[in-house]
Amino acid sequence: MKDRPRDSSAAAKPRTRASAATPKARRRAAALGPLSHYIGYSLRRAQLVVFDDFFHTFADLDLRPAQFGLLVVVSQNPGLKQADASAALGIQTPNFVALVDALERRGIVQRLPTQNDRRSHALHLTKAGEALLKRVLVRQAEHEERMTARIGKAGREQLLALLDKLAKVD
Amino acid sequence: MKDRPRDSSAAAKPRTRASAATPKARRRAAALGPLSHYIGYSLRRAQLVVFDDFFHTFADLDLRPAQFGLLVVVSQNPGLKQADASAALGIQTPNFVALVDALERRGIVQRLPTQNDRRSHALHLTKAGEALLKRVLVRQAEHEERMTARIGKAGREQLLALLDKLAKVD
Repeated sequence: MKDRPRDSSAAAKPRTRASAATPKARRRAAALGPLSHYIGYSLRRAQLVVFDDFFHTFADLDLRPAQFGLLVVVSQNPGLKQADASAALGIQTPNFVALVDALERRGIVQRLPTQNDRRSHALHLTKAGEALLKRVLVRQAEHEERMTARIGKAGREQLLALLDKLAKVD
Repeated sequence: MKDRPRDSSAAAKPRTRASAATPKARRRAAALGPLSHYIGYSLRRAQLVVFDDFFHTFADLDLRPAQFGLLVVVSQNPGLKQADASAALGIQTPNFVALVDALERRGIVQRLPTQNDRRSHALHLTKAGEALLKRVLVRQAEHEERMTARIGKAGREQLLALLDKLAKVD
């Protein structure tokens, strides 16, 4: 399954083949013009393609990138407050609450009252969550290796450093 | 207005100040652990920060990134079919139809019947759309310059090349 071509990724790419009788008249790859030289567009396009591989990697575990992020952040910070977790992941509160709800229903994450502030909740992984995390980190390493193969190890280091600079706003 | 601090960007960043009496107990920056060294997460984080600047840049023109992308692609490919435009921009059909609807209602884009295929529509900019595009490209250049200032011109070239490699899947 893993080595088969990934059909759904086609949606994010210009189609190069057409089933119609007169392919050229029916399909043409649009010229992107200056778009492909813009940082924002290029980031978004690369992110879609990388996330597409991520979706396939985690499809049978039913885990989306934001859920994966939450799992890792909570495992790194047991007892983390919801507000701090949503800030760390850059997810807005309503979406974040839905995200935690979904993982709580699946028995992966639990909300416990915090010691100093009864209004807020602290996030913890359940035993099942910890077991899932182990499997997930193995998959993630495979996904990361595939992405790294596209740009090389040195390219990966360059990329991470540049993305970090871009994201750090004073 | 342009030089003022951007309040809404705070939502995407860990908060470093707290209004509470005991800031340390109430807010802590969550350790991201391995997350910050993953390509997918780093791409997403950088994209959010870059798009945040984009949103502010185009706020008074009420133009979101996907709308901007459509404007540029249609200007580069007058008469482009909807299916080809959505493929080029990597936007799924239902979302793409809503996108075109919104720009059509605003009198920026128009759908005209295509010559060879009456079932599909060709996209064109209206006169108002062309006028808007000119203003938009000036703003975009300013946004791009701000982003480039964060990583340098050489860094920008490296970044675009790496993102391009990442996005090109055989």
